[in-house]
Amino acid sequence: MNALLTDLYELTMGAAYFEAGKTAERAVFELGVRRLPPRRNFVLAAGLPQVVDYLLNLSFAADEIAYLRGLPQFQHISPAFFDYLRDFRFTGDLFAVPEGTPLFAGEPMLMLRAPIIEAQIPETYLLSALSFQSLIATKAARCAGVAGGRPVVEFGTRRAHTPEAGVLGARAAYLGGCAGSSNTLAGFRYGVPVMGTVAHSWVMSFSGESEAFRQIQRILGESAIQLLDTYDTIQGARHAAKTQGPFWGVRLDSGDYKTLARQVRTILDEGGHKDAKIMVSGDLEEYRIRDLLADGTPIDAFGVGTQLSISADAPSLSTVYKLVEIEICGIQRFTAKYSDDKPSYPGSKQIFRDTNRDVIARCGECGRGEALLRPIILGGRLIEPLPTLEQARQRAAESIAKLPDSLRQLEEAEPWPVIHSRELRELTERTRRNLLG
Amino acid sequence: MNALLTDLYELTMGAAYFEAGKTAERAVFELGVRRLPPRRNFVLAAGLPQVVDYLLNLSFAADEIAYLRGLPQFQHISPAFFDYLRDFRFTGDLFAVPEGTPLFAGEPMLMLRAPIIEAQIPETYLLSALSFQSLIATKAARCAGVAGGRPVVEFGTRRAHTPEAGVLGARAAYLGGCAGSSNTLAGFRYGVPVMGTVAHSWVMSFSGESEAFRQIQRILGESAIQLLDTYDTIQGARHAAKTQGPFWGVRLDSGDYKTLARQVRTILDEGGHKDAKIMVSGDLEEYRIRDLLADGTPIDAFGVGTQLSISADAPSLSTVYKLVEIEICGIQRFTAKYSDDKPSYPGSKQIFRDTNRDVIARCGECGRGEALLRPIILGGRLIEPLPTLEQARQRAAESIAKLPDSLRQLEEAEPWPVIHSRELRELTERTRRNLLG
Repeated sequence: MNALLTDLYELTMGAAYFEAGKTAERAVFELGVRRLPPRRNFVLAAGLPQVVDYLLNLSFAADEIAYLRGLPQFQHISPAFFDYLRDFRFTGDLFAVPEGTPLFAGEPMLMLRAPIIEAQIPETYLLSALSFQSLIATKAARCAGVAGGRPVVEFGTRRAHTPEAGVLGARAAYLGGCAGSSNTLAGFRYGVPVMGTVAHSWVMSFSGESEAFRQIQRILGESAIQLLDTYDTIQGARHAAKTQGPFWGVRLDSGDYKTLARQVRTILDEGGHKDAKIMVSGDLEEYRIRDLLADGTPIDAFGVGTQLSISADAPSLSTVYKLVEIEICGIQRFTAKYSDDKPSYPGSKQIFRDTNRDVIARCGECGRGEALLRPIILGGRLIEPLPTLEQARQRAAESIAKLPDSLRQLEEAEPWPVIHSRELRELTERTRRNLLG
Repeated sequence: MNALLTDLYELTMGAAYFEAGKTAERAVFELGVRRLPPRRNFVLAAGLPQVVDYLLNLSFAADEIAYLRGLPQFQHISPAFFDYLRDFRFTGDLFAVPEGTPLFAGEPMLMLRAPIIEAQIPETYLLSALSFQSLIATKAARCAGVAGGRPVVEFGTRRAHTPEAGVLGARAAYLGGCAGSSNTLAGFRYGVPVMGTVAHSWVMSFSGESEAFRQIQRILGESAIQLLDTYDTIQGARHAAKTQGPFWGVRLDSGDYKTLARQVRTILDEGGHKDAKIMVSGDLEEYRIRDLLADGTPIDAFGVGTQLSISADAPSLSTVYKLVEIEICGIQRFTAKYSDDKPSYPGSKQIFRDTNRDVIARCGECGRGEALLRPIILGGRLIEPLPTLEQARQRAAESIAKLPDSLRQLEEAEPWPVIHSRELRELTERTRRNLLG
């Protein structure tokens, strides 16, 4: 299942490892964040349960194997490889940073240790699954961080890159600090609190706005939210203020929010709806939220769509999946890539997070602080249930709260210190000398 | 199936339509492109098969209904609504522009005509599915358009917003003009030609680069592509040039492509590999491709990843789903939204594409040229099989070829003329007067 959801070269390399007699070689791959996206001071790790699910279910169906066999790239591959694929499973080890952990440039988010074919094929899926959710969780943390405790609700499924990305994006947004999402399947599947109002079509389906408002209050009661801007926001607010019975509040979806929110607040108050809240949506992101609140605009909640659900100002994360170690007949060989300017560190690693810095060390070294990379799957088996989404969300909130103030700001700050242990630096130097002669 | 993959408000509105006695009202919704993304002169419509699949399979499972019933927003909803959901199916009509059709600002991509609840619930899914694939197909058309017939291969699944978005993105990229994709599932599922090379890990898994090159040629033969930049591109080219036997070519993945490609070409030629091709990948997009080729750099193929698979310079499409018409007991009422600056045109529509302009007319009007909105689903049934992906790709290529030169450029040009018929303008004016008094 899902084993074809990868780049073809993972599979041709799989075949080539097989034909080159490397089936028994064990590889260690490291998935890490090369650079932080612009204006980000950390990236929140997210998406691990999807990775675990993928690895535990990785297999090829018979028709998938037949498809590969028919491709021109596999014409010279021996039948034994296709037999091998029939029984293919992930039998290796996965080490990963818990969801909700802030990471910094150059830090590994996970490590896979497995026979080289089993470790190679997952590359594409793992990169996509973790990068996407981490991007969205990070963006959500930024939006929630400036909202001063006011709920920020994720409204962006319609702009997500496929509906399914909307579901996983909603999960990540909640993990990162959103109060909930409009994505109902994310509620059903992951327990994300779901929230929503009405669309303009509700208002337009009635011949008059007042009737639309009256009906939705009658039907939904105290959870009703009146959408004000179908025809004219101020006129809409007057209609809403005349609604009998309690309703949650109103939503502004266009116009100059600073002016409108104040006017609408006054109209609601004068209409006896002091408890009715004002939610704002439409082209919001963290800077806009900060700006609105800086002026004391009376806003109680935010709905954030496009900008959050595709992390519009930073829609990709610079993650890499690197071979760092290979074990051939019990002998370890360390590997690194040297054509880039950036140093590439070989070998299995651990991250130690101390109170004032991170140390990236060789696996097995002792260190101070929390060891971030934890065993998740050993020998193809999940060793214990993963933390729940609520726990991951809690970890995110607590971890972010512990960071220095400057790193919680929206602007790029002096980076959190990340250093490499002496042992790791020595190994790096030795590996470079061995490889480049 | 999939009926919860929507914004909660579609479902609360569904409940409210039900409670307000609107179940029998038939609505017409229009999904259109409000504005073209920056630098785009058209948007290629893509994603229709996924929309059709969704509509034909739309239903609620028992546990999904139980979930909704337990939500606070549904506490005042009568049991009859949940019974209604149990038998819920899409029984309406879908009209849509064929995949591969270039569209311009303000044009509808599809129209849904159905009982209002059935037409409301699909909003979120439809917007996401069509916007995403259309974005990627459009970006692919731009990349392929400047490559002068050289193959552009989509390599971006690892940067896609979820692995599944990688599969659908690969489909859209092929539709838009890419020669193929590295996404193997897109090959298996949609017949997209799949292509690939090897990763750095292949080279690093050997103790020497020459041995890695020799082995991959031996195993994959004429489809082998040597990746040159693991340690040093020029040294890599020398190793590749010494390979015995034919191989497809080499891939450059970092560095100054203009200089390197020339040097590598010379090394390959002098090594007797005049037929070996040069593929370039790494941070490419349409401007970079144009720039590389303008200098006559000897490049035979391009691999485009991040920039294509998330349409990085324009990662969202400004699509809207608008209620334009409602039929209550046989009487039509036209609807529009007036709070925006932009005019909103009520009523069912047709687009007529003539040789020099598009006319958006009322549905039922006669017009010159091709009528773009075609019936796809009538009364809940697909009326005929959709065009194949190959046919859609062909339509895209032919339609783009017919556009004026200026609209095929990368820069924003004088827009294609899109006018509204007199009947449509009159209806719009009448509707505005009726609504705003």
